[in-house]
Amino acid sequence: MKIGILGLGLIGGCLGFDLRSQGHHVLGVSCRQSTCEKAINLGSVDQASLDLSLLASAEVVFICTPIGLIVPQVKELITHLPKAAIITDVGSVKMPIVEAISPVWENFVGGHPMAGKTDAGIEAAQRNLFVNRPYVLTPVATTPSNAVTIVEEIVRSLGSIIYHCQPEQHDRAVSWISHLPVIVSASLIAACLSETDPEIAALAQNFASSGFRDTSRVGGGNPELGVMMAQYNRQALLNSLYQYRENLDEFIHIIEGKNWELLAEKIKLNHQALHNFLE
Amino acid sequence: MKIGILGLGLIGGCLGFDLRSQGHHVLGVSCRQSTCEKAINLGSVDQASLDLSLLASAEVVFICTPIGLIVPQVKELITHLPKAAIITDVGSVKMPIVEAISPVWENFVGGHPMAGKTDAGIEAAQRNLFVNRPYVLTPVATTPSNAVTIVEEIVRSLGSIIYHCQPEQHDRAVSWISHLPVIVSASLIAACLSETDPEIAALAQNFASSGFRDTSRVGGGNPELGVMMAQYNRQALLNSLYQYRENLDEFIHIIEGKNWELLAEKIKLNHQALHNFLE
Repeated sequence: MKIGILGLGLIGGCLGFDLRSQGHHVLGVSCRQSTCEKAINLGSVDQASLDLSLLASAEVVFICTPIGLIVPQVKELITHLPKAAIITDVGSVKMPIVEAISPVWENFVGGHPMAGKTDAGIEAAQRNLFVNRPYVLTPVATTPSNAVTIVEEIVRSLGSIIYHCQPEQHDRAVSWISHLPVIVSASLIAACLSETDPEIAALAQNFASSGFRDTSRVGGGNPELGVMMAQYNRQALLNSLYQYRENLDEFIHIIEGKNWELLAEKIKLNHQALHNFLE
Repeated sequence: MKIGILGLGLIGGCLGFDLRSQGHHVLGVSCRQSTCEKAINLGSVDQASLDLSLLASAEVVFICTPIGLIVPQVKELITHLPKAAIITDVGSVKMPIVEAISPVWENFVGGHPMAGKTDAGIEAAQRNLFVNRPYVLTPVATTPSNAVTIVEEIVRSLGSIIYHCQPEQHDRAVSWISHLPVIVSASLIAACLSETDPEIAALAQNFASSGFRDTSRVGGGNPELGVMMAQYNRQALLNSLYQYRENLDEFIHIIEGKNWELLAEKIKLNHQALHNFLE
């Protein structure tokens, strides 16, 4: 099959490797000539171009640009594509993307491979990044089942675990386990930075170990990614934050009231529940 | 030197291994006969007993019981000790312990080795756990300098990095980087568990990956430890929690107000600051 990849960063680069090793012919488009050359030299794509028209012959196109560029790039891309071409994206928020693209392109299937690395860019791309990772597809009522089946077959060949849900369900689920932790963790770092006694601030920095490191990691990550998720999943994230603030207040009240038995019960409940999240 | 260890759990067991390999004669006391036998068989102590009187000949005694038992056990222990014996503890909160013990035993030096493992008990004890880890000592104005020097020499021989501060400074510093993260993380798990739509709750569980795993880890840990730190460091923890709630509210207001530039700035600042905490 001829498969197009628009956006040759980490995810686009990884997809290219895996799709080529399945025997597909991979066409890549990037906005930078140097990236096109790297993608060819690394073996992530068969052909690469700055020009969207390269993708005119692709049967399926994966949109792998940063989330803010997905909708404008698709609108430009579709002027080059035959009606039968299938478009899918890899954006980490689904509702605003599906709502914008579905009305202008029937054969669109929203997608989100839940895999990644700390490093970005085609240089960090590797084989088998998606193996045993969730890959969410969010077709809507008007999506042709044929388009869903074809995207599904490709995703299955990556070794991913496929989930189907509505775009809104996806966005609410990731707001809990992916976007809320970023703000929770960012607030922790900000709080620790607010210590005004320089001696205590220095001791805190020296004493910080694995507990602080883990809890603060995602709050000091890539600022662009943090803003993107807040911007595109704003309402779901705010709902999660309002709920979180209630749970935080509950813990504060328990500690204020010295209700140690209840505190032990709650931490125990958390301990058991973690198994469901992290098998 | 004859060194006593009261409480043969993970920390007591690790101390025993390291002190014996320095050539000290190590006397261990536990409240369980089976633990005494294990400690001897593993080679963590030279002698072990259920009876505190075994420690009567020790020049220095490390109190390694759970935090709630430190003060009552010391009060019992000192009826067996000569005035010159030095007592030090390994409790993770210092103010209530130092305040209770200093008036009844002059040669007392509060201590806190900031090292640990997920597994507990003498079975999990290992050599060199304290190497390159902070070890905080909290002598007060009345502590004889000779006692501080002797404890310091032993701690240095473990390979630890020694810090001196006041008990209150220690407790405020650890409330930021050790105790606050537990409640922040526990509130995150509780919030995720509060999702009432079973489909979204199931998706969230399936989608959870490294970001959620790291941010939630310490909030689902040992319930007894969680309660102990809240109970013994209650006021410092509450102060940290009140500050944290303000920082959380600030992030919520930024997202409500769609102030994306400020959000990016704040995450960037966090990113830079993390280096100071985690070199």
